Amino acid sequence: MVTVGIAGASGYAGGELLRLLLQHPEVDIKSVTSKQHAGEYVFKVHPNLKGLTNLSFTKESPEEVATVVDLLFMAVPHGSSASVTPRVIDQGTRVVDLSADFRLHNPDDYPTWYGWEHPAPDLLKKFAYGLPELHRDEIRNSNNVAVPGCLASSSIYSLAPLARAGYIQGSVVVDGKIGSSGSGNKSSASTHFSEKYNSVRIYSPSGHRHIGEIEQELALAAGRPVSATMSAHSVNMVRGILTTSSAFTEGQIEDRDLWKAYRSFYKGEQFVRFMMDPSGIYRYPDPKLVVGSNFVDLGFVMDHHVDRVVAIGAIDNLIKGTAGNAVQSMNIMMGFRENEALMTAPMRLV
Amino acid sequence: MVTVGIAGASGYAGGELLRLLLQHPEVDIKSVTSKQHAGEYVFKVHPNLKGLTNLSFTKESPEEVATVVDLLFMAVPHGSSASVTPRVIDQGTRVVDLSADFRLHNPDDYPTWYGWEHPAPDLLKKFAYGLPELHRDEIRNSNNVAVPGCLASSSIYSLAPLARAGYIQGSVVVDGKIGSSGSGNKSSASTHFSEKYNSVRIYSPSGHRHIGEIEQELALAAGRPVSATMSAHSVNMVRGILTTSSAFTEGQIEDRDLWKAYRSFYKGEQFVRFMMDPSGIYRYPDPKLVVGSNFVDLGFVMDHHVDRVVAIGAIDNLIKGTAGNAVQSMNIMMGFRENEALMTAPMRLV
Amino acid sequence: MVTVGIAGASGYAGGELLRLLLQHPEVDIKSVTSKQHAGEYVFKVHPNLKGLTNLSFTKESPEEVATVVDLLFMAVPHGSSASVTPRVIDQGTRVVDLSADFRLHNPDDYPTWYGWEHPAPDLLKKFAYGLPELHRDEIRNSNNVAVPGCLASSSIYSLAPLARAGYIQGSVVVDGKIGSSGSGNKSSASTHFSEKYNSVRIYSPSGHRHIGEIEQELALAAGRPVSATMSAHSVNMVRGILTTSSAFTEGQIEDRDLWKAYRSFYKGEQFVRFMMDPSGIYRYPDPKLVVGSNFVDLGFVMDHHVDRVVAIGAIDNLIKGTAGNAVQSMNIMMGFRENEALMTAPMRLV
Amino acid sequence: MVTVGIAGASGYAGGELLRLLLQHPEVDIKSVTSKQHAGEYVFKVHPNLKGLTNLSFTKESPEEVATVVDLLFMAVPHGSSASVTPRVIDQGTRVVDLSADFRLHNPDDYPTWYGWEHPAPDLLKKFAYGLPELHRDEIRNSNNVAVPGCLASSSIYSLAPLARAGYIQGSVVVDGKIGSSGSGNKSSASTHFSEKYNSVRIYSPSGHRHIGEIEQELALAAGRPVSATMSAHSVNMVRGILTTSSAFTEGQIEDRDLWKAYRSFYKGEQFVRFMMDPSGIYRYPDPKLVVGSNFVDLGFVMDHHVDRVVAIGAIDNLIKGTAGNAVQSMNIMMGFRENEALMTAPMRLV
Repeated sequence: MVTVGIAGASGYAGGELLRLLLQHPEVDIKSVTSKQHAGEYVFKVHPNLKGLTNLSFTKESPEEVATVVDLLFMAVPHGSSASVTPRVIDQGTRVVDLSADFRLHNPDDYPTWYGWEHPAPDLLKKFAYGLPELHRDEIRNSNNVAVPGCLASSSIYSLAPLARAGYIQGSVVVDGKIGSSGSGNKSSASTHFSEKYNSVRIYSPSGHRHIGEIEQELALAAGRPVSATMSAHSVNMVRGILTTSSAFTEGQIEDRDLWKAYRSFYKGEQFVRFMMDPSGIYRYPDPKLVVGSNFVDLGFVMDHHVDRVVAIGAIDNLIKGTAGNAVQSMNIMMGFRENEALMTAPMRLV
Repeated sequence: MVTVGIAGASGYAGGELLRLLLQHPEVDIKSVTSKQHAGEYVFKVHPNLKGLTNLSFTKESPEEVATVVDLLFMAVPHGSSASVTPRVIDQGTRVVDLSADFRLHNPDDYPTWYGWEHPAPDLLKKFAYGLPELHRDEIRNSNNVAVPGCLASSSIYSLAPLARAGYIQGSVVVDGKIGSSGSGNKSSASTHFSEKYNSVRIYSPSGHRHIGEIEQELALAAGRPVSATMSAHSVNMVRGILTTSSAFTEGQIEDRDLWKAYRSFYKGEQFVRFMMDPSGIYRYPDPKLVVGSNFVDLGFVMDHHVDRVVAIGAIDNLIKGTAGNAVQSMNIMMGFRENEALMTAPMRLV
Repeated sequence: MVTVGIAGASGYAGGELLRLLLQHPEVDIKSVTSKQHAGEYVFKVHPNLKGLTNLSFTKESPEEVATVVDLLFMAVPHGSSASVTPRVIDQGTRVVDLSADFRLHNPDDYPTWYGWEHPAPDLLKKFAYGLPELHRDEIRNSNNVAVPGCLASSSIYSLAPLARAGYIQGSVVVDGKIGSSGSGNKSSASTHFSEKYNSVRIYSPSGHRHIGEIEQELALAAGRPVSATMSAHSVNMVRGILTTSSAFTEGQIEDRDLWKAYRSFYKGEQFVRFMMDPSGIYRYPDPKLVVGSNFVDLGFVMDHHVDRVVAIGAIDNLIKGTAGNAVQSMNIMMGFRENEALMTAPMRLV
Repeated sequence: MVTVGIAGASGYAGGELLRLLLQHPEVDIKSVTSKQHAGEYVFKVHPNLKGLTNLSFTKESPEEVATVVDLLFMAVPHGSSASVTPRVIDQGTRVVDLSADFRLHNPDDYPTWYGWEHPAPDLLKKFAYGLPELHRDEIRNSNNVAVPGCLASSSIYSLAPLARAGYIQGSVVVDGKIGSSGSGNKSSASTHFSEKYNSVRIYSPSGHRHIGEIEQELALAAGRPVSATMSAHSVNMVRGILTTSSAFTEGQIEDRDLWKAYRSFYKGEQFVRFMMDPSGIYRYPDPKLVVGSNFVDLGFVMDHHVDRVVAIGAIDNLIKGTAGNAVQSMNIMMGFRENEALMTAPMRLV
């Protein structure tokens, strides 16, 4: 049993985390905080949870919550975690941080990708990067986990085996498609239904901040620097990510070698599925088939016209892309069953 | 522990039932049948279940399956269950039938609503109508359950308290909105994505077959005949039902009396939620908030311009409208925890 | 040739009106106003119009615009038109008002349906109600037109023939389904894409303000008072309305009598289509088939279980429900071809 | 005035072409053919056209139609045009072919991309490639036009200026997103609404047949061979294409040089819009803003992390991607106003 709190539980990531934790038999949720909604019932903000919890939001600071819990999930905005989390860590409380503030190991990457100097650069090395399938031992042996970015997760899951196998030449190009929930719960002109419905919006043609994470992790997998870039699109759905990545190669790679690279990399991983069916209507990964679950679905195709592997990844951005990996990391850290609260089967139809 | 089979598990209802049962700790799935897909892995037809089961479809007849299971779920087409199920019952196997063939207690209603004479009219009285909140005791004491129709379920849940309280005058009019999954997995011109997307299709302006069930159940609740009719629409989504029903009244009913009628009817029911928030963006039931769960969300409003109660119901047509009530009925029959395998929290965003 | 202005052209209705007028060979657009966007190019706010106009928004008041145009379209918020439009009329400028402020002939109806006393009750009788198919002569002989509400339009078009024929008994119940554009361009929590997508939101179970218009027009058609009410839903699309109305009858009406009622009412009307195909996938009106056009599609079905005609109407809420009828009314008033700028064929696929 | 026929008018491309031609004042439609629907009213198959035409489908062969028209639009399946069209040309009738069968100039490209030998290789040089903005003079001087593929069109429009300017190094990678209408009107399991809704389906990770056209046209623009490849996705909408292309460069290209390359290439083109707004919610091309119109919207961004230009194109696949360019090509060939029947303004909201 572990006592936990969620700082910033009124957002979409925090709400999804709460939804998962409410179904976790080893977790006792002591506190969920929200400045804006302090004093309100959780189900007023997350009406899906009506009938499932009587918790209310509190206005406690993360440090205050830290005094009464074993582990604190930080679901606060990017940038604000970096200034608060060090104090929580000083109190001896474990931290699972959903923000971007402790994902990059090299302090110099923060000015590059986020535009600010990191206020606690020495702490970066104390955080495990929370992709359990890549960093299980580090997570087990750490008190602090930085949950990866959602587009980064799908990209890394699908590309790391190629990096490990030494197949990647030149710059990887990721084309990301993500549902609207990835941009949070703040309404604006750009998220107004009438404007967003039916659109295919390239919101970040270049310079996406997750590129930093992707390059970090591919370099670790490859044992040498790997160049990557991304164009990111918001598409006409709420949940889910598909990343289609071009990994250029030196000559053609045989299918059996690609299979070997992926299978060996993910041997025994229960949340990784290879979705490559030569017939039928789901021949490759599709976010439709993972929504609601902690699965990451992977596929890969050798392009015979250009020396390029098309690496495909699909996840639920709020689960395997955020709250699911947060819970899985907690399970590993605390010695629980790794899949506890994460075994909901995805719906076929959604 | 109970051993079960699913006859007709390749359809949407059967697949959803299988998804739920795979997560049920007291259930051992012995056999899932499909004429069309016999010999194929289940995950070939239901790719969402990849990694969760290694079951294959068999071509066994329901009677054959019945010899090796305690309970058989019949998920075969309307009309065909009526001819097969009697033989299964003769073998002493419990039956939970998802078809329409044993829902109506009065044999005369089959020619009226389905256009055929019932081949086993004596069996009709041996089936409990599987709305657990209305017929829990009958389900507990029966070996056979007929799972209600999805549009009927939402209608009955939202109207029965008014019938019980004696408020309904004249003919109830249900306006039903349902997602595409309600019409099954057979592709056709009318379900072609390019034709169906963005449409609001009134596929049954009058004469919907679920009217028979609705009148049956409202009459039982009222203790006298109740007239009802329906116009049913297929709307631009896959899962979910909203029913908006007009129950005409004699004069205006006070809000407190409406609350009393609904609260007393559903006292202690864990799967019934009243969704009526005077503020916020979810002021009434919305299928978006129940998708993936076994909840039925209810609301009611007195129309002050015309003597009419607007009774609102929202369910996931494949769960509370089909597979969820099937599992809940099984739990009751078998003496399991009533909510076993049914406690997945709905997602806020889908 | 007519010179026109649009007061309030940055909203969705004003923008759609502008789109139509840009294609009108007899119209010279002198001024389009917007307080919020004064000085900006129109295509900055309505980027679809890029390449089609170099107009900019001005901050002129309606009275100022009125001095330079023959006809002023008022596309300002409900409530504000009532105070400004009288001054425009005093200047001798023709007015086509898209707001609700001059739709109701009886001043007493404003407190009932809008909650305020009308500031210019004497002007109400000087406005024609802009449903051209019902009030062509009044429009031709008037200088002022009040464009009907969108849900009211679809309801009235589909029900007026029944009222005229004397078939309506008791209270008509309209079930309205409308796309998000009906609620305008202001973003809010309730219009946030992540919250609105996939929802079926009953935003007005009772008391919808368009009921006043519906009762007014049905009474005119029937020659006696007609009672009506409505439940209105916002569904998962941007454009389009479907209204499904229950008109209770005394006994069953023969199909040939229904056809006669509708055909005689709309004899020779080029924008009215009867969409009732006994086969195929579009057997009744569907907003999908009118989007982008000025058509109103109608259907009707006698319910043989309850004495009720199901009257079905489908329109594009921004065209036949707003800007299209505004242009058609202008065409009639000015003696242009009635269908000028209104003949764009609807797309089959959208 | 020109007399025309459409061979294969019951499909989506043929139906859209018919919709446009019905609004063309210089066109007299003599015959629309359909084997499957011969004898049926056009509006039975294309119900959007009800009230706009009384044409019926005939079962005439293209050669028969060719005897009575000046120009024949071939909207028959890929592969079948190649065997029929030569006979039509022999009769002296002009041809605008919507199939792929005469797009590629080099006969050797047909085995490569389509898997069959071209039966009339000598005719290939008699067809102009129907991108009017790139080949206006050839179209004017030809009797035969091959209308480009839809994904090819968006790709070529967005990349040709870079090719012409000599900026492209190595292999261009196109990531295409297209609505369901691109795959036609045949229903199947993969187009079943319940399966397709909310999916992001990578239906062609590599080897897409339009690559042949893209390489042909980029080579013509560059004056040297250009390598290209594509990954194509079917996304959750019906109409529209967005292509996001990576054109690798030698070093960084200045924004002013990119602007110069694009502006000079498309100088004076009325159907090309540059959609690059540094503020607002439509900062880059989005198919939402072109649906229903003949516009192609273009954008381009220099990636500062990797030497790559992101070239973005958006079109309505059925208009600028098919029927619109067909009509525009006809207008050029026949000496009509080039934009006749093509000036419908796109809707902002759809």
